[in-house]
Amino acid sequence: MKRTIIKGDLIFQSFPDKFETISSGCVVITDGIIDFVGRFDDKLITDDCTFYDYTGCLVTAGLNDIHIHACQNAFRGTDTDLELLPWLSSTAFKEEAKFSDLSYARTAYAIFADELKKSATTRACVFATSHVAATKLLISALEESGLKTFVGKVNMDRNCPTELKDESVQTSVFGTKELISFTAGLQNTKYMLTPRFTPACTDNLMSALGALADEYNLPVQSHLSENADEIALVKDLCPSSRFYGETYDRYGLFGRTKSGKATPCVMAHAVHSSKAERALMKANGVVVAHSPHSNINLSSGVAPISAYLDEGINVGLATDVGAGHTKSMLSAVVAAVQSSKIYSRLVDNSARRLKFSEAWYMATAGGGKVFGKVGRLAPSYAADILVFDDGVIPSAEVFPAEARLERFCYLSGDLRGGIKAKFVAGKKVY
Amino acid sequence: MKRTIIKGDLIFQSFPDKFETISSGCVVITDGIIDFVGRFDDKLITDDCTFYDYTGCLVTAGLNDIHIHACQNAFRGTDTDLELLPWLSSTAFKEEAKFSDLSYARTAYAIFADELKKSATTRACVFATSHVAATKLLISALEESGLKTFVGKVNMDRNCPTELKDESVQTSVFGTKELISFTAGLQNTKYMLTPRFTPACTDNLMSALGALADEYNLPVQSHLSENADEIALVKDLCPSSRFYGETYDRYGLFGRTKSGKATPCVMAHAVHSSKAERALMKANGVVVAHSPHSNINLSSGVAPISAYLDEGINVGLATDVGAGHTKSMLSAVVAAVQSSKIYSRLVDNSARRLKFSEAWYMATAGGGKVFGKVGRLAPSYAADILVFDDGVIPSAEVFPAEARLERFCYLSGDLRGGIKAKFVAGKKVY
Repeated sequence: MKRTIIKGDLIFQSFPDKFETISSGCVVITDGIIDFVGRFDDKLITDDCTFYDYTGCLVTAGLNDIHIHACQNAFRGTDTDLELLPWLSSTAFKEEAKFSDLSYARTAYAIFADELKKSATTRACVFATSHVAATKLLISALEESGLKTFVGKVNMDRNCPTELKDESVQTSVFGTKELISFTAGLQNTKYMLTPRFTPACTDNLMSALGALADEYNLPVQSHLSENADEIALVKDLCPSSRFYGETYDRYGLFGRTKSGKATPCVMAHAVHSSKAERALMKANGVVVAHSPHSNINLSSGVAPISAYLDEGINVGLATDVGAGHTKSMLSAVVAAVQSSKIYSRLVDNSARRLKFSEAWYMATAGGGKVFGKVGRLAPSYAADILVFDDGVIPSAEVFPAEARLERFCYLSGDLRGGIKAKFVAGKKVY
Repeated sequence: MKRTIIKGDLIFQSFPDKFETISSGCVVITDGIIDFVGRFDDKLITDDCTFYDYTGCLVTAGLNDIHIHACQNAFRGTDTDLELLPWLSSTAFKEEAKFSDLSYARTAYAIFADELKKSATTRACVFATSHVAATKLLISALEESGLKTFVGKVNMDRNCPTELKDESVQTSVFGTKELISFTAGLQNTKYMLTPRFTPACTDNLMSALGALADEYNLPVQSHLSENADEIALVKDLCPSSRFYGETYDRYGLFGRTKSGKATPCVMAHAVHSSKAERALMKANGVVVAHSPHSNINLSSGVAPISAYLDEGINVGLATDVGAGHTKSMLSAVVAAVQSSKIYSRLVDNSARRLKFSEAWYMATAGGGKVFGKVGRLAPSYAADILVFDDGVIPSAEVFPAEARLERFCYLSGDLRGGIKAKFVAGKKVY
């Protein structure tokens, strides 16, 4: 039994609309699970425990980036003028093709894993390319980082360059199974089925992947209703589906397998989801990966996130590198608040704007759901914990903990450092 | 005669819509003015010159932040839920009132000047509070920073808390004249008339400030058509003005003095300017301080900047701290591109989206106009120069200079460092 105590100014949430704080509080962790959150007392320290004293620092739940393309890390912040489909052809696919070169893949994925480790992200859902060998390198690099991640090789067998296309449904399934075995027994990394998106997956491929989801009880990640041209393309390709989400659901890839098992399912974007699509997401427990920077960079639009939350849909937050330019989940939190303001000002005046606390909840507890009891500073949750030294922001002013967290997010771009420590499942990884 | 040579990968613009690059180029500076931009040659180095070798780094023109409130630096990134008028009452004015305490002002302005010095900003137009003594502290701190700035005490005599209100028009003018004298003879800092905005200035005050503009030939800065409620308030207060801009123009505070002299005039925001207001800005050479982060944070809306540019209106870029949360002009460049995408997607599909090169031009040459021949890497321009070490971004990929600059902006929030050197008028300040 391993016992750890982390002391600092705790800020946590029982509900999205507000924060609770304990100054000079502590989190007590046993075997990676939180078992006490409250006032610090010297008597809590025992001989066998590890004590981290972060007095004066902010201590929060970890941030879960539930949609990020590891293979698009190199070019993020370039070619920012395009919309989704031309951007895929001219930028994303071109970069992804390079991952057939294992030496390139090794370097690129090592950089990605190192940067993610140093970021504020504790857990992530990660897209690789379609290459099996390169995906193994990514899995190994992430496993070593200490972060907890769900990773998948992209499956695609149409509407993409030959060098990225899975040769056949059989090859695609075979490669996927190889990676399922490869991740079996790993401590930090779990396989996640990753059909790229409906335009790039034939019905046969979807059907085969649906069978794998059922057989191995796998989580699923893909893209949904991101861009108007993409949605029109899906309508063309799948005339019998009433809406985009149904093209996944009919194959058991939308939160419920064909045999009716619930599996975690992350759908990125949902910028333009219809009422029916929203209802199905809610019914199936699909988690929307809200990616505000990406949606703006690719001129996709702005998702009506407060409405989704009010309807009871699960929403988590994501950076969506490389269409999103930054791996900073702190910046994603800010962008989520800003996007909700844009939506209410420019699209629908009656739409509720997200409070900072709601965006933070989305980034922690919202996305945390994908991984189990994750994303809250509360007993029985995994001890994913961030320690922020907001003393790196020089200030003539003293702020309460909530304002300290808010400005730490908003000013993170101005800071040199500030992420003091990061714990994942009770283990200090940075 | 002082001669300086800066070597590196030059990236510069003759026109907004594209970049020109010279790898292993150099800028030759004589007495603070650029006199050569071209290929580096060892023969250029003479015994009497100072040579800076930044081989492999990006060398660009300086960034001009033409609207920033020094006195709102402390609370940026907090209280982000409000719109302009309630935010002024509950947040901004409350903070500004603290500057009657000179000890608080000294600390706060020292932090501000130090952070601005370390940022990518080379020149700035800066708002102080209404306090004369505190404004002197700000002027001194900025003078010492080596940055070139225009600074003004805020003038206001209505619709604000008593502790911030100038007691009378006479007091307001008297204090302003004291600061005009205080800045006379300074090397880096120039006085800029700063009527806060029409809602806070009586006609008598505006008239007196207009006379000062004429008498001292002073540049002017204020706010314009930022928020719907603010615009409605101006309409109420000034029923005889056809539009907001006219409330400045009738007193010679909108780019032309009463006697017809042209003076630099910076109007922040112009989110909702009418055709007539736009025509007058163009006719008078008013420079719009586009503040995209601020306009989103306060839910003011999104300014149609590409239309302004196409109409021939001068536009520069601004952080507008504290409504803007970051002093990073790199982040402002990104936000300007993002805002134009939002405008075209959500407001007017026919609106042109800004290219990265246009946003960069706005931030350099656009705002540079306010200060004279400033903001371009070209002969006869002031030698305001930034050196970026984009080697701090680990990469498996090699990019051309334009992509390097673009990603340096987009990824600046992820970086630890990267601003290698900063020259203002030929002098290395950082």
